[in-house]
Amino acid sequence: MDPETEFVDQIALFAALLCGCIVLGHLLENSRWLNQSITALLIGLGTGCLILRTSGGKSSHILEFKQEFIFIYLLPPIIFNAGFQVKKKQFFRNFLTINLYGVVGTLISFAIISYGATRLFPMLDIGYLEMKDYLALGAIFSATDSVCTLQVLNQEETPLLYSLVFGEGVVNDATSVALFNAITKFDLSDTNLYTALEFASSFFRLFGLSTLLGVLVGLICAFTIRTLYFGRHSTDREVALMILMAYLSYITAEVFGLSGILAVFFCGVVMSHYAWHNVTHKSQVTTKHSFATMSYIAEVCIFLYVGMDSLDVGKWRFVEDSPGKSIWASIILLVLIMIGRAAFILPISHFSNLIRRDGNEKIGFKQQFVIWWSGLMRGAVSIALAYKKFTGAGQTIQPANALLITSTISVVLFSTIVFGLLTKPLIRRLLPHSSETEPSSPTSSTMPLLENGHDDDPETGNQRTLTAKASLKMLFDSPTTTIHTYWRRFDDWVMRPIFGGRGFVSYATGTRDMDVIH
Amino acid sequence: MDPETEFVDQIALFAALLCGCIVLGHLLENSRWLNQSITALLIGLGTGCLILRTSGGKSSHILEFKQEFIFIYLLPPIIFNAGFQVKKKQFFRNFLTINLYGVVGTLISFAIISYGATRLFPMLDIGYLEMKDYLALGAIFSATDSVCTLQVLNQEETPLLYSLVFGEGVVNDATSVALFNAITKFDLSDTNLYTALEFASSFFRLFGLSTLLGVLVGLICAFTIRTLYFGRHSTDREVALMILMAYLSYITAEVFGLSGILAVFFCGVVMSHYAWHNVTHKSQVTTKHSFATMSYIAEVCIFLYVGMDSLDVGKWRFVEDSPGKSIWASIILLVLIMIGRAAFILPISHFSNLIRRDGNEKIGFKQQFVIWWSGLMRGAVSIALAYKKFTGAGQTIQPANALLITSTISVVLFSTIVFGLLTKPLIRRLLPHSSETEPSSPTSSTMPLLENGHDDDPETGNQRTLTAKASLKMLFDSPTTTIHTYWRRFDDWVMRPIFGGRGFVSYATGTRDMDVIH
Repeated sequence: MDPETEFVDQIALFAALLCGCIVLGHLLENSRWLNQSITALLIGLGTGCLILRTSGGKSSHILEFKQEFIFIYLLPPIIFNAGFQVKKKQFFRNFLTINLYGVVGTLISFAIISYGATRLFPMLDIGYLEMKDYLALGAIFSATDSVCTLQVLNQEETPLLYSLVFGEGVVNDATSVALFNAITKFDLSDTNLYTALEFASSFFRLFGLSTLLGVLVGLICAFTIRTLYFGRHSTDREVALMILMAYLSYITAEVFGLSGILAVFFCGVVMSHYAWHNVTHKSQVTTKHSFATMSYIAEVCIFLYVGMDSLDVGKWRFVEDSPGKSIWASIILLVLIMIGRAAFILPISHFSNLIRRDGNEKIGFKQQFVIWWSGLMRGAVSIALAYKKFTGAGQTIQPANALLITSTISVVLFSTIVFGLLTKPLIRRLLPHSSETEPSSPTSSTMPLLENGHDDDPETGNQRTLTAKASLKMLFDSPTTTIHTYWRRFDDWVMRPIFGGRGFVSYATGTRDMDVIH
Repeated sequence: MDPETEFVDQIALFAALLCGCIVLGHLLENSRWLNQSITALLIGLGTGCLILRTSGGKSSHILEFKQEFIFIYLLPPIIFNAGFQVKKKQFFRNFLTINLYGVVGTLISFAIISYGATRLFPMLDIGYLEMKDYLALGAIFSATDSVCTLQVLNQEETPLLYSLVFGEGVVNDATSVALFNAITKFDLSDTNLYTALEFASSFFRLFGLSTLLGVLVGLICAFTIRTLYFGRHSTDREVALMILMAYLSYITAEVFGLSGILAVFFCGVVMSHYAWHNVTHKSQVTTKHSFATMSYIAEVCIFLYVGMDSLDVGKWRFVEDSPGKSIWASIILLVLIMIGRAAFILPISHFSNLIRRDGNEKIGFKQQFVIWWSGLMRGAVSIALAYKKFTGAGQTIQPANALLITSTISVVLFSTIVFGLLTKPLIRRLLPHSSETEPSSPTSSTMPLLENGHDDDPETGNQRTLTAKASLKMLFDSPTTTIHTYWRRFDDWVMRPIFGGRGFVSYATGTRDMDVIH
């Protein structure tokens, strides 16, 4: 069989599996335990077993992905969609808390996992690991995967909790990847205060520049679509331009050694705030749903792949003679993850409660537990980072590296499946309200996000005054809203007249009315 | 620079170029001469020159595509979208004529080009070519690219002409690729009547089975979405399932050695007839536009790539010492293309006029000229097939093969740019009406297709009686409509109750009304 035919066969099988995942995921939607991620992971595991069987133990993959594949093709749509669909008001209202969780929290978790590993791993006698490896481990296991929890939480009933978990998830992804890149690039052989400071400054510069880049690309896109009046000729061009510009922000950031995740996230936020209002109504519907679909497919792809990849014999062979070590390493890592997470959720929530004057807005203990729980799962980002670090050109060379890979896989599998299975019952017990509501109308799978994602939807114009009053009240309740008001004024007077946005595109309304009539 | 970084750089540059193409294509929309394809081709050429300059004459590519890339990723969305957006009524009304042009015509053109090449090429002294090579040449240069003409024709004013050119384009693509595959697979060393018959039967079996596969996958998709009631939970899953099932039809056909193009085309037709009516209104808008967008991006990608690739120094170096031969070969091929096309357009049109009783439906001489002209351009399919045949693993080995590659590139460039530039003025002179209308509202770039693509749109329910009357009149005018009526009855009584479709999905209407109100 020549390689081309084989490749076609593999793609066909993978596409069939994806279809299977979608159908099964739909059927199991109302299941008490399972969710989309676990289903895809289990299907991946099952297929891996089958392939392992039929290939006589040689391979468990359908497609041999490189880790770059995840970073170049699968992660951008997921993060972009997160930015595009985020409830901007909630996100920016809780901006401080989210960033404390996402940046400071991730750094605390990183420090604890790294430190714990340096102390505990030598006891296992797994071979020599450099300081850099331990730091990389910390970054790898700081990357959470909150998809599981978000599928259970109800944005309407617990908007604060939802926005915190969601926001932390995105900022955490960006922080851990940025941290990981900083570690691999930096020479950390002799750590003193100076290098630590330099490291910190480079990390925050990277953070700032990436955000700036994303915002810039988003604004350019909005400006182009607005001034060139794209809708006149073609809805497809608008949609294509938005997709490509978003991807451009990600890949440009990567080219310049910045964080693509941060860039594409903020590009998504800016696009949904400006560019989305400049396109025709048809494009608005199309972008909303097609971005969500792309993100959905990418997510299923990743879990399916992780499931298959976790049976890769090449990686397990190295730890064959010492399975105990791998299991112990996994247990140590899991415990460190749990401690590392508790170590920042409690103090940051406490601090956040201190600066919130509104009683309803405080983060109670149950909420804190849910936030802690939501970040225990490890997913695609951890896997991809571990491959990037511990495999040279796809091959596991050193035994210690092989052990770290297998431990990563074990942690991801265990946390996604076991913690994942417990999530639904646990949250429904803690927050009993959410068990009663079922989605009543056909909507997106990231339904709570989509439905009110564009909370400044032009259609809800009559609700605006109400929202304005609410935000006036907020101004006195919380200090961060003061900045918000200034921003709003600036947005209304400077930004929107230039870049478009709700209420600043004349022809869009005409089109919309036409659409409704036809 | 390590390969990964370089790859990221290349992707970034390619994405930026794509954005440039979209913006420029939009700006040049009203140009008298240019169109999207030519713009992308010219930008590709320009970039190729630049890269050639900066790399010191080493390379002209940004990304080194393999020809499989075009077949596996870029062609399926284009063909699927063609099937999905085709005006089914017009298409099936002219089914016989379209198939005569597309199948019989392509075979005639193939025969003439192959025969002409066997006679004329030996005079050029370009080295030995097998019989198989000549036959492959015939198949390669029978694949037309009618995008250029379709961009100029107006579906509302010349529906017959539009549907003929469009339909022929798709069927022609499928025929030539199927023909090409049959040639490369078959042992054609000793051609006698028996092998010729065997070849013909295998070709038609392939044709039939591919169509069947596409229809089957489309029906399964419709059935699944209908019975599992996908819209209840998620619009994304519906859209994702449609995309993946469509791709599955293409890739499955390829796995079984069938024609993916035919399969995915008919899968698109069936999906738009059944599955599209089973999804929520939001998914309907999303699929319509996102499929068109994917097709649009794929098309721009191909032309951009062809532009850059045409400056590939590796391929031109082989013909350096004999540029005259390459030019002569290109001229011979161009002349053969023109003759081969005229040789079937005139008789088939004449035959078609004989069986049409309605005077308005006859294909006049001007129309015949436009149909002839529309198929003179050669595009991505020719390039991809030529690479598949004449390059071994991406490298051009034999001088004769290199010459055929460069000739193919020359023919594609010349026909797309020169014939392409002449298309707009020519058609506006021949069909003076079409110059006056401009699209008045923002629509898709494949606007004429989209706007009335789903001519059985549920929204236009009040126009149905009118259409029914018109089709009753048609029944007596044209013999093919008799089959159409039987099909319609079968569709109404058997197919739609099972697979859904217009008027057979109860909950969709509810959703739609809700959407309009909100």
